[in-house]
Order: sequence, then C-alpha cells, then structure tokens
Amino acid sequence: MKEQILELLKGRHTERLKTLLANSEELEILHIFYDLSPEEQVIVFRFLAKDSALSIFEQLDTDLQQNLLQSFTDDKVIEFVNEMAPDDRVRLLDEMPASVANKLINSLSAQERTATNVLMGYEPETAGRIMTPEYISLRKGMTVREALDKVRKQAKDKETIYTLFVTDNSKKLEGVITLKKLLTAEDGVVIKDIMSQKPIFVSTATHQEEAARLMQELDILAISVVDKEERLVGIITIDDALDVQQEAATQDFEIMAGVSPSQKQYLKTSVLTMTRQRVPWLLILMLTATVTGTIISGFEDSLAVLPALVAFIPLLMDTAGNAGSQSSVMVIRGMAVDEIHLRDAIKVLWKEIRVALFCGLFLSAVNFVRILLLNQNIRLNLTVSLTLVCTVVLAKTVGCLLPMCAKKLKLDPAVMASPVITSIADIGALIIFFSIARAVLGL
Amino acid sequence: MKEQILELLKGRHTERLKTLLANSEELEILHIFYDLSPEEQVIVFRFLAKDSALSIFEQLDTDLQQNLLQSFTDDKVIEFVNEMAPDDRVRLLDEMPASVANKLINSLSAQERTATNVLMGYEPETAGRIMTPEYISLRKGMTVREALDKVRKQAKDKETIYTLFVTDNSKKLEGVITLKKLLTAEDGVVIKDIMSQKPIFVSTATHQEEAARLMQELDILAISVVDKEERLVGIITIDDALDVQQEAATQDFEIMAGVSPSQKQYLKTSVLTMTRQRVPWLLILMLTATVTGTIISGFEDSLAVLPALVAFIPLLMDTAGNAGSQSSVMVIRGMAVDEIHLRDAIKVLWKEIRVALFCGLFLSAVNFVRILLLNQNIRLNLTVSLTLVCTVVLAKTVGCLLPMCAKKLKLDPAVMASPVITSIADIGALIIFFSIARAVLGL
Repeated sequence: MKEQILELLKGRHTERLKTLLANSEELEILHIFYDLSPEEQVIVFRFLAKDSALSIFEQLDTDLQQNLLQSFTDDKVIEFVNEMAPDDRVRLLDEMPASVANKLINSLSAQERTATNVLMGYEPETAGRIMTPEYISLRKGMTVREALDKVRKQAKDKETIYTLFVTDNSKKLEGVITLKKLLTAEDGVVIKDIMSQKPIFVSTATHQEEAARLMQELDILAISVVDKEERLVGIITIDDALDVQQEAATQDFEIMAGVSPSQKQYLKTSVLTMTRQRVPWLLILMLTATVTGTIISGFEDSLAVLPALVAFIPLLMDTAGNAGSQSSVMVIRGMAVDEIHLRDAIKVLWKEIRVALFCGLFLSAVNFVRILLLNQNIRLNLTVSLTLVCTVVLAKTVGCLLPMCAKKLKLDPAVMASPVITSIADIGALIIFFSIARAVLGL
Repeated sequence: MKEQILELLKGRHTERLKTLLANSEELEILHIFYDLSPEEQVIVFRFLAKDSALSIFEQLDTDLQQNLLQSFTDDKVIEFVNEMAPDDRVRLLDEMPASVANKLINSLSAQERTATNVLMGYEPETAGRIMTPEYISLRKGMTVREALDKVRKQAKDKETIYTLFVTDNSKKLEGVITLKKLLTAEDGVVIKDIMSQKPIFVSTATHQEEAARLMQELDILAISVVDKEERLVGIITIDDALDVQQEAATQDFEIMAGVSPSQKQYLKTSVLTMTRQRVPWLLILMLTATVTGTIISGFEDSLAVLPALVAFIPLLMDTAGNAGSQSSVMVIRGMAVDEIHLRDAIKVLWKEIRVALFCGLFLSAVNFVRILLLNQNIRLNLTVSLTLVCTVVLAKTVGCLLPMCAKKLKLDPAVMASPVITSIADIGALIIFFSIARAVLGL
C-alpha cells in the first residue's frame, strides 16, 4: 500500500489518494506514515478524514507532530490541539518552545485547559505528568447492568474502558474492576461485590518508571493515580508504560556512555546539541586521566630502570576498566529492573569479590603462560600476574559498590558506569602495578 | 505379577493393590499396563503414586494416554499435562483433536506453554515462541450482539478479550475489532462493517522485539500472529511486549558491558556462571591490549628520549575510549529502537565526524591551556593537542561505523560497544600519538 500512496502522490491523483486513505485502516496508515518524508507526511495528512487524522496525529512522535503542526493554519492548530487527549497534548506541549506552548494552552477551551493544566502542574517524569483524566468511574452501589450502560455511553471519549475505577462522592478511590469481570458477571450483581477492594495505586508524585514497573509486574492495563487525599485524579495506561520503559532504558544507555540524556531522536539532534551532550563528560574524564598520568610520572625512575613495564600499562588499564564496567553495568541494570536492592549490598559485594577472584586468577594464569612463552623476565611476569588479580578484584569491588552508593545518595546509579569506573580502575591499577613492581622487582 | 494385579482388582483389595504397585518397578507396571482393559487401566492408574503415575503416563502410547485423560477430572487433566515433559506433551497434543489440544495448551502455565511452543517448532525469540493461542475469534457475519454473547461466554479462559480476531473457516485472519468498538456499536450491526479490514499482523518467525516494537508504535493491546498461509495461530498481548522490551534492553546492557547475556536474575546466578559469563570478553580484550603494549614497546626509543610522553598515555587512551563509546552506544541504541537504519549510515557518519571535530577541538584547547599553565614543553603540548583531535575523530568514526557494520553482517550491533571500541581506539590513539610525536618532536 505504501507504493500505491507514493504513486498517487507523485501523480497528484488527489481524489484517488483521498479514496484510498478513506478505505484504509488507521493503523496501516500510521505504519506507513513513519516511512514517508516530512513533505509527503503533510500531503497525506491533509487528505485524511478528520477523525482518522486526529487519531493518527495523537499516536505520532512529537517531532512528527510538530512538523505537521507547522503546516497547519493557526485555526487548524488550535482545533487540533483542543481535540487531542490531555496526556498526548501535554507530551506535545512539553516539547514545544514555551511561547508556542503558552499560546496553544491559552487557545484551549476552558475544560480542556483544566485537564492540561492539571497534568502540567506535576513534576516532569512523575505519574502526574503522564496520567490521563479520561477514565470511566463507577459507583460501588451500581449494578453490573448500570455500569455497562455507563461504559457504553462514555466509551468514545475515554482513553481506556478496560479498567474501570470505583470512586465515592469525593472522588476517593474505592475499588477497581476490569471490563472482563464486568462482562462476565450477572446483570443484577452490585459492583461492590465483585470489584477489587484494595486496588493498587500510585501517587501523582511517584516516578513514572516506578509506575510502569508496577504495571509490568502486575500485568495490568491501567493503574490509578491519586493525590495526597487519595482522590483519584487520573490513570496511566499500559501504552504509556511501554513508552516510559523504553525511554528509561535509552536514558540509562546514554548516561552510562557519558552522554547527557535527551528526548530527541539521534538523527534529529543538531551537531551542536550533540557536542554539548558529550563534551562535559569527556572533559571531566580527560582531566581525571591526568591524575593517572601524574601517577606514572611519579614512578618515572622505576620506568627508567625497566622500560618494559610501560608495555603492560594498556593491558592493565583496559582489563581494570572492563572488569569494573561489567560489574557496574550488571548492578545498575539489576537495580533499574528492581532485581537488586540496597539491602542486598553485602550479598552483591561478596558475589562480585568471588567472581573477581576467579576472573583475576584465570586471566593472570593465561597471561603468565603468555609471558613465559615470550621468554620474558619471570619477576616481571609475576608482577603483572599479581597486579592483574588485585586489579580485577579492586575494579569489580568499586564497580559494584559505586552504583549502590549513588542510589543511597539518591543520585542516578547509571552515572557510575563504564567511564567513571574506568577512570577509577585505571588509577587503582597503576598504583597497584608500580607498588608491586617496586616490591617484587626491587626498583 | 499380572495375575496378582488382576486378582486384587477383582477382589477390590485396594490397599494391597496400592502396596504391590508401590513395590513394583515402573517398567514392569508399564509392561502389564498394555494387557489391561481400558477400565482396568484407569483403576490401576489411580492407585499409582503420583510420581510413577506421571512417569508411566509419559511413556504410554497416545491412545492409552487419551483414554486415561478422559477418566480424569478437568483439574487433574490440567495438572497432569502441565507436569509432563514438553516433548511428551507435544506428542500427546499432536495426536489430539485440535479443540481438545487447544484447551489443554490454554491451561498450561506460561512457562510450560513456552516450552511447548518451542517443540512445536518455533525458533527462540520469535513471535511464535511467545504467542498465546488464548484469543477469541469471531466471524465477520456475526452481529454485534452475537459477538458480545460469545465474548461473555468465552471470556474466562482467554488471555485477552479486549482485542477480538475475525477469522474465516480456515482460520485465515480477516479482521480485528476492539471490544470498545464492539460495545459502542448497535446490537444489530454486522461485524464485517465495523472491523478493521486490514489488521496489522506478524508471522510466527518475526523477531519478538520487532513484534513488541510494532505494538508500541501502534499503541495496540494485542497483535495477531499468523503462519505461512496467513492463518491465525496466536496472539501476543501487550504485557508480553513489555517483558520482551525489558529483556531486550537488559540483554543489550549485558552485551555492551562485555557480559554474555543470561535470562537469570543477578542474585540467582551462581558465582561460577557469572565468571563464565565474564571471563571470555575479559580475556579477548586483555589479549587485544597486548597489541597496544607491543606498539608502545615499538616506540621505546622515543620514550627513552622523552619519558614525559608516557604520562600522557592514560589521558589519550581514556579519552579515545570514552569518545568512541559515546558514539557506538548512541548508534546501537538508535538502531535498537528503530530510529537509525542502515540507509542512514552516511548521515550518521557525517554527523559523528562533525561532533568529533567540535569535541576534539574543545578538549585540546582545554588541554593546551592546562599544559601551558603547568609550564611544559610547547612542542609536547602541540603533540598532545593534535593527537587529541585526531584520536577523537578516529574513535567516533570507528564507534559509529562498527555497530552499523555488525548490523549489516547480521551480527548483534551491541557487541560493538565500549569494550571493543575502547580496544580499537586505544591502538589508534597510541599510533597517532607516537607518529605525531616523532614528526613534531623529531624523536
């Protein structure tokens, strides 16, 4: 179908394009949309029926949305933004220049503005920011029949109808029931008797990743978001949880590689922005590495006596860095997916030390044989092998401890990944190396 | 012994029969089993200890198995089938009427189902492996009322009722409709008129991550999985997509840190397994680092003339490694979330080169000032600064190209992350350093 669309576009067969689009599935169009050029997207979008246009628009990434908005007249922009679901709208407004966003917010109808403002008032990356107020609420005294009628009537305007929320007069959350349960119950049954009485909920201030993780663990399609008085103010749906989870992983990848995280797609980020994202860490780490250099300078006389020592510096530095990174990444990820907690610190440390000993011993055995075969100084050989074991143990100890310390200090553990650990491990490796060299080789 | 059993059966000496069976060899019982009438089989089977019962059951011919299953209560059938070895189970299921087999497959725990799907012939990490056959199928000629009745009736046994799948007699997928749409339509409307006519689907061979990504992009709660003949064989639900996505990210983190991926939780992995996961990469990288060492040895005379050079080795190696890792991680992640494609290679390369130039120039400017302040050799200063620029450009070029090459070669791009890039960047950095040093310093 993509080929068909492109052909019609090329031939300017607008009427036929319109018909084709009208007879196509939204999902299919959405699927094709990502493969079109920005210009083609604008043209195709113009020929969509209004309802499908809105529905497709809401599901696009924000940068595609912005591209489309730029092609609209002001009136059309306002109309469009007004009709978007509040949480999708907040996502769009969040990424827009503040002045444009403000203009748009002002243009919203009073009701829509309230919904958006509610969402905008919460801290970034909290449940409050990504929730939608478009849920269906029931009363516990309703019968199944009454509830189903309400669901049918309100379904169109709601983001999900598959999880229904039971509240009292003051909007206090009293229970949750799935549409599945409702549909399989007898008409006359009262909601109170079949709802989950103690629904899981998060607060508006809960971190969005925690909310997403909770939904994943419980295999639920929507979760309640309550305010301080435990009144239901919104819900988070599973599709948002999926997005949150993916963003969180991407952010961790970036931080762990020493790149300041951004929401923007790689290809759409300017060279200058990218440079700004990357230079700070490179700079910090470069300056840290001068410490390592200073250490080497401090041992210059040892090096003068036995220049062969220098050749082992890369091997020791790299192995230290790699061994430390392995541990830090495993621990960081373990904490991110909630498998490792701070209370496990001792267990983790003990495990890493044993793994480090095994790895270190294995590596130094291989290295010992390698140097022997190359017929080098046996004392030098011993020095390198001994250093390897100590270095791997040190690197892995630091590698597992630092992310946990960061977490304890409420910092992002991902910061304590490869680059930082490598710098620290390097310093440790060289100090160990030269100390052992002095002792064993009598330098 | 057969006579003994028959006698005890006839005399209803149940206790003695139980004791006799408990003291007999499984193989012996199995042997006798074939000579008993179906009724006698059922009775004898009931008096077997549970473990021998299962073991004997697995070894029976499928027709005897089916005879026994018919005598069980539903719960017992489920319990039994669930506990069978997957290969025996597949053999049994293969011979059963499709409807009974489906019912049994549905009753399996998620884990057992996966095992069964494996043996039913789907590759690991494919849609076929994680799909569930627990969906509700409708016919396009049904009215909304009829469809809703079917949903209500079948809801209990299905994994999801929120997406309904329309198939023809030969199970060919004809459409998809959400429960929301069904609930908001008039009772008399025919499904055909309101269903999505061209549903998005994946094949059993589609990679699970692709299926999950598709569901995320389209914001759908379930996706159809079809076989080669486009017959619907299962569906993937959003909760599985969430798990797939998280597993995929974890796996990438592990590979990128030079740890062989495993499905096991950190705290549940033994020290030996962990060592095995980590040693291979450490070893490969350590041996690669000896190349770096050899390069240094090759320049030993230069170092003898100007020992101060050595102090800059860590700075150059670390900066090269970090700069390269930044690029490789960004590109690997970009490809993982489908933002970067192979056709973007030139764009990515051009972007990285410019970013590298900016980063490199900035770093060498800072470094130049730092060395100036420390009052060091101006030529040495120039050497280091020039090396920094060249090294960062080289590292970022290699860092962005290697993951894309890996992808082109159908390898996992994540392999080309920090550890590998660091090794390569180190070698490059040192060669550049010593070459420039020789030229500028006339060593």
